[in-house]
Amino acid sequence: MTATTSLDVALRLDVLALYADYAACLDEARMDDWPGFFTEDAHYRLVPRENHDRGLPLATVDLVGQGMLKDRVYGVTSTLFHAPYYQRHVIGPVRILGEAEGQIRCEASYLVIRTKRDQPSEVFNAGRYIDRIVRTDAGLRFREKICVFDSELISNSIIYPI
Amino acid sequence: MTATTSLDVALRLDVLALYADYAACLDEARMDDWPGFFTEDAHYRLVPRENHDRGLPLATVDLVGQGMLKDRVYGVTSTLFHAPYYQRHVIGPVRILGEAEGQIRCEASYLVIRTKRDQPSEVFNAGRYIDRIVRTDAGLRFREKICVFDSELISNSIIYPI
Amino acid sequence: MTATTSLDVALRLDVLALYADYAACLDEARMDDWPGFFTEDAHYRLVPRENHDRGLPLATVDLVGQGMLKDRVYGVTSTLFHAPYYQRHVIGPVRILGEAEGQIRCEASYLVIRTKRDQPSEVFNAGRYIDRIVRTDAGLRFREKICVFDSELISNSIIYPI
Repeated sequence: MTATTSLDVALRLDVLALYADYAACLDEARMDDWPGFFTEDAHYRLVPRENHDRGLPLATVDLVGQGMLKDRVYGVTSTLFHAPYYQRHVIGPVRILGEAEGQIRCEASYLVIRTKRDQPSEVFNAGRYIDRIVRTDAGLRFREKICVFDSELISNSIIYPI
Repeated sequence: MTATTSLDVALRLDVLALYADYAACLDEARMDDWPGFFTEDAHYRLVPRENHDRGLPLATVDLVGQGMLKDRVYGVTSTLFHAPYYQRHVIGPVRILGEAEGQIRCEASYLVIRTKRDQPSEVFNAGRYIDRIVRTDAGLRFREKICVFDSELISNSIIYPI
Repeated sequence: MTATTSLDVALRLDVLALYADYAACLDEARMDDWPGFFTEDAHYRLVPRENHDRGLPLATVDLVGQGMLKDRVYGVTSTLFHAPYYQRHVIGPVRILGEAEGQIRCEASYLVIRTKRDQPSEVFNAGRYIDRIVRTDAGLRFREKICVFDSELISNSIIYPI
């Protein structure tokens, strides 16, 4: 019996819903809602697969705590100048790897399609979420979210969170 | 507690199955089966995100009722001349947003990959389903399906339903 | 009532987990673990859609039994010379079509994104899994997995399993 099957069925579906809601928040560009998916002391990290696999410390984005998450939102919405684009996340089936010390370890493959104005949609970023989820009074929240993307070549910049 | 978690677990899985079956119908080009996923009075709409977000009335495809759905099938299979292509839907996790007045509100991100003969597969259409699902004696059916696609630039034409 | 709804809820979620685990194994290039997803007498087949639909016998890859699966792993990891690339599977919702004679028939659309070193991620292979799953003491395993891909045009070679 794996850790997955020992978890409550409803919890497994709630985890799926968390991922669906998270992706919808980003794809609808509701940036102010984004930090609300994380705990107060959360760690959000966006890192190329090569660096992640080798344990190298450099990351494209590395945020700890609500203050840094909100600062990133402010940066994205108010100070960064960039050509606007839409994001579209398609997330594959979620692996629930187990629960220990109140944290549910999950992984999921993701694909982000980017659409610029007057341009066809294109593959923008593909990779894997490596997450730790905790139960809170307000529902499930990410205590840690590491986005490991496969390509070290990024077309233009990654502006919005993945 | 969100609306999602209050819904019955089996129902949530049945909603997932509906999306899977719907996509398979289109990807296998079983066009005659497509109207069967909708209620008698259903509304099917395919609209660019820009128009949808601004509340503009123009849509790429706008069909109301089984008659128009079947007419679209007839058009696609019998009267439109076009280079044949395969569709492949990949649908992300479904958001079940709530149930009211017998309608289950759902949303899901979708990606359609197109493959033309002797061509590599390519990103064709990406967007979001905004749906209302009802229970019928024959199972779950779409009462309303709005396909909001991110790109206003469509390579060639959208022939088959999304 | 469809076959889907008559299956146990936990089983349906376990099937989803099997697909998630399978994809993760390949995407993390844990090739030695790949045969473990199959039964001793399993059939693995990778075939273009055109050949599959016409019932033609030719397949890109056709393996029967653990011996051939392990031989393929050996070939991929030890004898084939090729430019390295990452795979990233995104699998859509799984259709559980029924259970008969101890085999659960499932289908799912898949998309594989390929990332070569210093290259942007790109659509590599899209298609449908047509599978037969059985219960074993070690959990769910594939008794048969047929990967039907939409494009007959493959950029370079398909080295790793899909």
